[in-house]
Amino acid sequence: MKEIHIGLIGFGTVGQGLAKTLLNQRQRLKTRTGADFILSRIADTHYDQLPEEFTAAFSKEARDIFDDPTIDIVVELIGGMEPAKSFLLQAIAKGKHVVTANKALLSVHGKEIFEAAAAAGVEVGFEASVGGGMPVIKALKEGLVANEIQSIRGIMNGTANYILTQMTEHGYAFDEVLLDAQQQGFAEADPTYDIEGIDTAHKLAILMTIAYGRHVHLDDVTTEGISKIHPIDIEFAKEFGCRIKLLAISHNHGDHMEARVHPTMVPNSHMLANINGAFNAIHFTGDTVGDVLLYGQGAGMMPTGSAVAADVVDIGRDILTGAVGRVPALSHLPETMAPASITPMGELQCPYYFRITVVDRPGVLAQITGVFGRHNISIKSMIQKSLGKNKPVFIVLRSHMAEESSVQRAIAEIDALEVCTDPTVTIRGLIEESNGD
Amino acid sequence: MKEIHIGLIGFGTVGQGLAKTLLNQRQRLKTRTGADFILSRIADTHYDQLPEEFTAAFSKEARDIFDDPTIDIVVELIGGMEPAKSFLLQAIAKGKHVVTANKALLSVHGKEIFEAAAAAGVEVGFEASVGGGMPVIKALKEGLVANEIQSIRGIMNGTANYILTQMTEHGYAFDEVLLDAQQQGFAEADPTYDIEGIDTAHKLAILMTIAYGRHVHLDDVTTEGISKIHPIDIEFAKEFGCRIKLLAISHNHGDHMEARVHPTMVPNSHMLANINGAFNAIHFTGDTVGDVLLYGQGAGMMPTGSAVAADVVDIGRDILTGAVGRVPALSHLPETMAPASITPMGELQCPYYFRITVVDRPGVLAQITGVFGRHNISIKSMIQKSLGKNKPVFIVLRSHMAEESSVQRAIAEIDALEVCTDPTVTIRGLIEESNGD
Repeated sequence: MKEIHIGLIGFGTVGQGLAKTLLNQRQRLKTRTGADFILSRIADTHYDQLPEEFTAAFSKEARDIFDDPTIDIVVELIGGMEPAKSFLLQAIAKGKHVVTANKALLSVHGKEIFEAAAAAGVEVGFEASVGGGMPVIKALKEGLVANEIQSIRGIMNGTANYILTQMTEHGYAFDEVLLDAQQQGFAEADPTYDIEGIDTAHKLAILMTIAYGRHVHLDDVTTEGISKIHPIDIEFAKEFGCRIKLLAISHNHGDHMEARVHPTMVPNSHMLANINGAFNAIHFTGDTVGDVLLYGQGAGMMPTGSAVAADVVDIGRDILTGAVGRVPALSHLPETMAPASITPMGELQCPYYFRITVVDRPGVLAQITGVFGRHNISIKSMIQKSLGKNKPVFIVLRSHMAEESSVQRAIAEIDALEVCTDPTVTIRGLIEESNGD
Repeated sequence: MKEIHIGLIGFGTVGQGLAKTLLNQRQRLKTRTGADFILSRIADTHYDQLPEEFTAAFSKEARDIFDDPTIDIVVELIGGMEPAKSFLLQAIAKGKHVVTANKALLSVHGKEIFEAAAAAGVEVGFEASVGGGMPVIKALKEGLVANEIQSIRGIMNGTANYILTQMTEHGYAFDEVLLDAQQQGFAEADPTYDIEGIDTAHKLAILMTIAYGRHVHLDDVTTEGISKIHPIDIEFAKEFGCRIKLLAISHNHGDHMEARVHPTMVPNSHMLANINGAFNAIHFTGDTVGDVLLYGQGAGMMPTGSAVAADVVDIGRDILTGAVGRVPALSHLPETMAPASITPMGELQCPYYFRITVVDRPGVLAQITGVFGRHNISIKSMIQKSLGKNKPVFIVLRSHMAEESSVQRAIAEIDALEVCTDPTVTIRGLIEESNGD
């Protein structure tokens, strides 16, 4: 039986998930591919030896993997920038195919890595970098190949979605839920990447790159997190028939494309409003297929192991059939890739939610609505809520489609009003498409 | 530039969808594959010529396609058993790769067709046979390759789901919604396949075959439709926090596997309860990945065109790289395929819903619950509802997990009671998994 030999760098949670997957599924992969997928080398500086069930050669040196001529595929699962980047480039230089789950690295140095791989004639698998075990990269590269992708919208971070779900279902404050999630091990000790939207931005940059065939860098993505979301805004969202979700959003305008991550008002009728807990969901609109959504666990040892193993098998099949390079790594031929032109944030058009805090005095509402009117922002609905006698009043408004730059100017004007006691809270809304989506 | 030549048999709705897709996406496919995908021949007995925008050679004879040595891939989109089956076998015999959306044919004659293709060394694409444009076949064959699939559960017929959604949201009767759907063109003149679950059963047989590597035939699937669903049961379902959905369900028990299509009580908290209108969703549980769900339009000219085109490109890539047979058509090597062992319906274990109609008389409830007790059926909750003075009473019960054969015996006994005025309505419930799914 033919053999595919795999070398793994990084025996942390995801690395162990891959090792277990290849062990558990070895027989199944034989009946599905006719080949034996063997994890033959593992390198990790944190260990001296492997648990008994794994028979791979173990070493502290990644170099031992690159130097082994029998290794076909090198899997990098250490994360972070360095030494992950050097390891990938060294493996590529040695003519190894590579697989990684490293979204942070790919969203910053992806161009360099993919160009090196194309030049060396090796494949790069990165299914596990977005959406855990959901085959979302494969869906974009192959299943939806005959589509212009018109939009990408998704919940791509389980920690942030878990926190928002707990806040929504129980009325808890952000800090309270975060602390609890940390104590239960759902959230990292340093949760910055998750709660500030940075992890989500990594993933959006990768998806946009393959969806549109344009190089998108982490810096292209405008990113806001959820740490300032207040339970009161979640309650007002409910009154408007919405939920607040941390979404990655990209609309493709042909010559330019949106790239943004921020808390978003999602109408309850939209699928993304109903994705709860640590689950992820990614919604594509294609010009041929219409709406497609994938849902699943976006992280975790075994779901991520499933995705890495799928990449390993995919590359293995190409090796076995002599079809290396069968599908371009970034879904488009390297020579057709171009830099992305990103829609300036000020030009964004979407509906908005505003919570304005004012003193309770006649004529205030007219003042506020006057400002919006002068900036061409049309109001769709309004709730006024008193916080008690002699206390401020919340004026909560939802606008129709408005332009971000107008909104920013209007809010600056409103916040400068003498009657305004606190900075206005602004949350962008999901663009509802004409197909009723 | 390399060329892939496609011949299309059947220029109906889906055939036109494919033709439009290949025309619209021709440039995009070049930048993604480096090849020109050309629809060069079309055959259909219903037309004399093609609309102007299509430049393919047109004929009434499918044979003209098989006889053209330049054709690489033959796409069959006429549907039904014959002549579709003969056309596919003739194309295979001529060494053509084939693509079909014909679920009815594959769920009955799939074994013969796939064996003929394997013997001839040609590929069979059938992504469009299940789930419209959702890449569900590809997900099972490739994205989830490193998984034992433990369950398949899905809403696979848009017409049935549309009808149930309308009944649920507006309280309409089945016949009323069906007639309206027919008048609007959402439902066929003869809706039997859609409403009686047969179309769903076709799709489940195909998914089970590739998920488990076992040949599953349409006849293996126990099938019940939605034509007897009464609005009152939908209302009671709501009181229990559930929705009634027409689901395809298969649980994999290792040495045997369930294969059933029937109306199902789905708790509101489950994703499948929230799939509304004509949308489809298919939920897999894999031992590595956990839960994954795909959602999208399960039918229609363009979504189906998207799936057929994806198959054409997939096969085209294999031709271009000399990798024909890279992934086994049924996801498992032909020599590892075996007949499926289907769980006898009587051995099914699931929760049940019962609506029992009785005369309003003291002691009746004790009689009913006594029957359930004797058959080891444990009751989880109960609603009793009077229909008015001197009218019958509904006793509505939900059971914990119970065995189908016991349930059938208990219901026969209850329906034979003198106090029982109408046949008992029984609806199976979704099995809630321990992972909180």
